[in-house]
Amino acid sequence: MHFELSKKYIDDLKKIISDHDEDAAVMLMEELHAADIAEIYDELNVDEARFLYLLLDGDKAGDVLAELEDDDRELFMKSLPSDVIARKFIDYMDSDDAADVIADLPDDRQEEVLSHIDDLEQAGDIVDLLKYNEDTAGGLMAKELISVKESWDVEKCIAEIRKIADEIDEIYYVYVVNEDNILKGILSLKRLIIAGSKKKVKDISKEDIISVKVDVEEEEVVNIARKYDLVALPVIDSIGRLVGRITIDDIVDVMQEEAEKDYQMVSGITEDVEPSDKIWVLTRARIPWLLIGLVGGIFGAQVISSYEGALAEYASMAFFIPLIAAMGGNVGVQSSSIIVQALASNSAGFDSLFKRLLKELAVALLNAVILASLIFLFSYFFYDSMALTISVSGALVIVVVFASVFGTFVPLALNRFNIDPALATGPFITTVNDITGLFIYLSLAHYTFSNLAG
Amino acid sequence: MHFELSKKYIDDLKKIISDHDEDAAVMLMEELHAADIAEIYDELNVDEARFLYLLLDGDKAGDVLAELEDDDRELFMKSLPSDVIARKFIDYMDSDDAADVIADLPDDRQEEVLSHIDDLEQAGDIVDLLKYNEDTAGGLMAKELISVKESWDVEKCIAEIRKIADEIDEIYYVYVVNEDNILKGILSLKRLIIAGSKKKVKDISKEDIISVKVDVEEEEVVNIARKYDLVALPVIDSIGRLVGRITIDDIVDVMQEEAEKDYQMVSGITEDVEPSDKIWVLTRARIPWLLIGLVGGIFGAQVISSYEGALAEYASMAFFIPLIAAMGGNVGVQSSSIIVQALASNSAGFDSLFKRLLKELAVALLNAVILASLIFLFSYFFYDSMALTISVSGALVIVVVFASVFGTFVPLALNRFNIDPALATGPFITTVNDITGLFIYLSLAHYTFSNLAG
Repeated sequence: MHFELSKKYIDDLKKIISDHDEDAAVMLMEELHAADIAEIYDELNVDEARFLYLLLDGDKAGDVLAELEDDDRELFMKSLPSDVIARKFIDYMDSDDAADVIADLPDDRQEEVLSHIDDLEQAGDIVDLLKYNEDTAGGLMAKELISVKESWDVEKCIAEIRKIADEIDEIYYVYVVNEDNILKGILSLKRLIIAGSKKKVKDISKEDIISVKVDVEEEEVVNIARKYDLVALPVIDSIGRLVGRITIDDIVDVMQEEAEKDYQMVSGITEDVEPSDKIWVLTRARIPWLLIGLVGGIFGAQVISSYEGALAEYASMAFFIPLIAAMGGNVGVQSSSIIVQALASNSAGFDSLFKRLLKELAVALLNAVILASLIFLFSYFFYDSMALTISVSGALVIVVVFASVFGTFVPLALNRFNIDPALATGPFITTVNDITGLFIYLSLAHYTFSNLAG
Repeated sequence: MHFELSKKYIDDLKKIISDHDEDAAVMLMEELHAADIAEIYDELNVDEARFLYLLLDGDKAGDVLAELEDDDRELFMKSLPSDVIARKFIDYMDSDDAADVIADLPDDRQEEVLSHIDDLEQAGDIVDLLKYNEDTAGGLMAKELISVKESWDVEKCIAEIRKIADEIDEIYYVYVVNEDNILKGILSLKRLIIAGSKKKVKDISKEDIISVKVDVEEEEVVNIARKYDLVALPVIDSIGRLVGRITIDDIVDVMQEEAEKDYQMVSGITEDVEPSDKIWVLTRARIPWLLIGLVGGIFGAQVISSYEGALAEYASMAFFIPLIAAMGGNVGVQSSSIIVQALASNSAGFDSLFKRLLKELAVALLNAVILASLIFLFSYFFYDSMALTISVSGALVIVVVFASVFGTFVPLALNRFNIDPALATGPFITTVNDITGLFIYLSLAHYTFSNLAG
């Protein structure tokens, strides 16, 4: 039903490549979907991939290049001369994919590749698309679409579709425009098929349409497409002229990227890495958060060192240092990630900042009282020190409340200043809460131990 | 271009509802997409929502119900009698959405609602769909689809589409089956339109199709649809008969749910919550991880208490307790989440467990040496204790390496036993690494301090 990559398949393929057996390679590739051929890339070195991919016919070669991971593609393109990139791949690609590929090239190579594209309309579309910021609707859209005039009838529409259908892989909607190319409506192929051939486009098209402007950010594009269950979204310029369309496959890719980015942020990884990446790439993705953790730990050491005397006297003060630090960090991550997720999916509601913080305070207090009661009971029965019991349960209440409110406030504040609120989910919140918690616990413990005398 | 919910809009709407002004409410709702009307639900109480939603015409009412969040829908349905649910909503819904709605009802109400559905074909479809596990292709698919016979010509296909197009919102593909309803190919509406009316289906349909079996898990369905850029995926039974189709909007919803679930897991939240949820729901979602953290903290306290004597003698041993605990936790979360993400997107590659762990070991050692060198330098210059400096840097190397390998191993092991590897990203890894780190650090510190005498 669909292809499953296996170790054996890869070994066989590598054998075929090392034998330079072109016929066998072509036969193998013919059975596969472009997405499968792209998936194989990870298992090959650049030379092997080049041997294989240059054997593909144009359409499939273009599709495979479009399906490659960004960093793989960049490496692969470095191994190819500009005219091969243009004539073997770019010429056959959808304009949006072609623009993405070219945008990743160094500036001087961009012009070189563009100059080798034989289809001038394609080259023009790509140059148009390169103007848009890649994180906006303009950066996502393709120029391939079918637009029809309001005044046409169904027969003329179908003739138009026949004329340019070859250039467009998938057509779900036909876009209806007026004489000035202003978007007026959409017409699904279904409606076109069930309407009689003499019907006017104006009478069967849907006028109440959802579109996005070219400069809308991609997160917003995703939210709109998802909310309204759209498979394609027309893109208009500032005066309403139809300039492109975004298809669901690109929207799904953005969704996936966004989800991965947020996930990485909360788990403290700064790059999109996979277990198959090189050791130094994996290290580079992980060291920044660890360095922040290290600096946090150094501050923590400073805080503790200022209580060195007290600790020497009352060593049991140290017992709950890890508990307090962990709870502050955990609560902060929870609070911030609930807000970040709500902001990302536009489901945060309309409460004022004050009302939100008040609610978070209530949740925090409830959590804090439950947790503090439990640790009170544990410490009371297991450690023979009232000072310790009071310190840990008292500090836990303050730490949980502080970490919750802080974890809620920071992402909301970042969002207000148009900074990605997900920045607040990782190291920053955890480290600040660790240190604050430590300080609260030790100062409370110092006071309690000194007064209750251990 | 699309609707933006505002505080003012909600206030106006609430006024209209409290005035029981049906005409004004109908007019307001007419302008809105079902997804917008569903979004308003969060801002209303159940009585207000019922007043509003019962004014909608059938198709829109069904769409709105389908768009509601699961927990909102369950509450809303409780406020309605079974015949209203059946005749006002279910009758107008797609079979997959209808089955989802009914599946959420208590068993006795399920039968009651089913008995009130006027459209017997719809009722039959729903009963069929309820048999499938909701996390499989069968649970995602709808029965509404257009199937045509191989032997038909284009004209007959179009006649068939005209006949049943009303029942199906969106049609992108027509499915080609043989006399036994075995899926043989697909035909896009585009191909249907550009082909002449006398062409045979067999000659223009695509035979190399991607389909899924009913019992395939939804994660797999998502991966297939995303990989091959499909907007609809036919579902077949064990002998290849066409039984339904899954559309991209449902696939996008599953993607979103999966991403949110993984995100919640790594940030320590056990339910799908939003800031607008009730205080006790938010607390309930957060307390489990905090309890695990608390138990971890208690174990940590036990570990430290066994070094109480040493701490009383060498109080500076305590300085780096938070650093070691934080680093163990952070490294573990990083390692496990890289693996979890790769497993989720099927990009984990084919390396053996041993090879993976070996690679993780290399990454870990590189990280560990960098971090330990830094902390060595800091401690050497800022704290006048060689014992402390050796303890913290030595322990850091061991902790980082242990946490990395453990964080990589656990999700891989869970995955091998078909347990969701994301379980390993949250509290479990962090807590185990915290305690292990503490133990390593304190035992090393105890040894070093005793031998170097502070």
